[in-house]
Amino acid sequence: MMDFGTDFKPYTVQPQKIEGRSFEMIDEEIGDHSFTVEQYPIVQRVIHASADFELGRSLLFHRDAIQSGIHAVRSGKKVVADVQMVQVGINKPRMEKFGCDVNVYISDQDVMEEAKRLNTTRAIVSMRKAIKEADGGIFAIGNAPTALLELIGLIKKGEAKPGLIIGMPVGFVSAAESKEELAKLDVPFITNVGRKGGSTVTVAALNAISILAEKV
Amino acid sequence: MMDFGTDFKPYTVQPQKIEGRSFEMIDEEIGDHSFTVEQYPIVQRVIHASADFELGRSLLFHRDAIQSGIHAVRSGKKVVADVQMVQVGINKPRMEKFGCDVNVYISDQDVMEEAKRLNTTRAIVSMRKAIKEADGGIFAIGNAPTALLELIGLIKKGEAKPGLIIGMPVGFVSAAESKEELAKLDVPFITNVGRKGGSTVTVAALNAISILAEKV
Repeated sequence: MMDFGTDFKPYTVQPQKIEGRSFEMIDEEIGDHSFTVEQYPIVQRVIHASADFELGRSLLFHRDAIQSGIHAVRSGKKVVADVQMVQVGINKPRMEKFGCDVNVYISDQDVMEEAKRLNTTRAIVSMRKAIKEADGGIFAIGNAPTALLELIGLIKKGEAKPGLIIGMPVGFVSAAESKEELAKLDVPFITNVGRKGGSTVTVAALNAISILAEKV
Repeated sequence: MMDFGTDFKPYTVQPQKIEGRSFEMIDEEIGDHSFTVEQYPIVQRVIHASADFELGRSLLFHRDAIQSGIHAVRSGKKVVADVQMVQVGINKPRMEKFGCDVNVYISDQDVMEEAKRLNTTRAIVSMRKAIKEADGGIFAIGNAPTALLELIGLIKKGEAKPGLIIGMPVGFVSAAESKEELAKLDVPFITNVGRKGGSTVTVAALNAISILAEKV
């Protein structure tokens, strides 16, 4: 048994209230923007996860992104995360309700061996595996620009057709460039402009989509 | 067997080169700062993980933070993560080399039940459990301000004495305030000023400490 001798402090609040108050603060502070009513819940969750309005305001949506993402969730399509941090952050009970399982290939034995052999990133090799096992699914890429660039290359060759790409890798080398390339494609994507991004905001965007899938 | 019919693109670079080039860019762009030679590798990794110089420059270090953190790693102390995203991001092979295991209590059955019963956050309850099982260890808090506030309360009461606290929760409700409270304590801490933070930067700071533990 645990000991609960520690008194509760005035800062203690109920979990639901923390989230609700955060969303109110975002609404109050975001100012003018041109996101649609459909896009705004995703922007709001990205800001909630990062406390970064600049990052939230930098989001870009393909016109079919949200409807195609909702459709993929409701159809129980597979989800592919580029890294384990993205995988564990995704709300699993909600995804499982729709029959979506959340996969990550980057630490698979075959992927590691091939990346070493080819002297390339495991991220690249993992995308080649992912399109075979999870095509039509949702690709959530929050860390590795090389994963996103590889996926873009596979799409251009007609070898991949994801239901939704959430492409928000972070970093100094190729991250911004990879997202620029994604934004040129006519495929359902959610991305952002610039170097910022990361696992937490990628997770936030996907969780926002699955909440919409439940509600709409 | 996987098929490697896809040609490599010019963007393909070796993993080690990506990181090296990123660090060079950070050095070039950070400008004047007052971090010590000892603190700078942590700042650099936080910026690398977030592409956010403002966030990196907002870091605050207790004077004993780095030495105490290195000592905790080398002594094989336990690491406590507030959430699973922090846990999975931490470089495990390096930690295991020193005998440090990385724990997260927030989804433990007893923690979930007690949090529900008390109508409070699982984060708070998980910290009460953590100080019993991992005191003297490294507490890496990247998500939940309530976890950090609870830990601060336990320290003030003399019930907890962590070897290092990396406290960088993100958010709109209590995050900045929790970090202000941490910065008032005379205990080894790494934290930052403001709402920003999160799992990825918390992981980056801890990974930087374990790299130092290997090198120095």
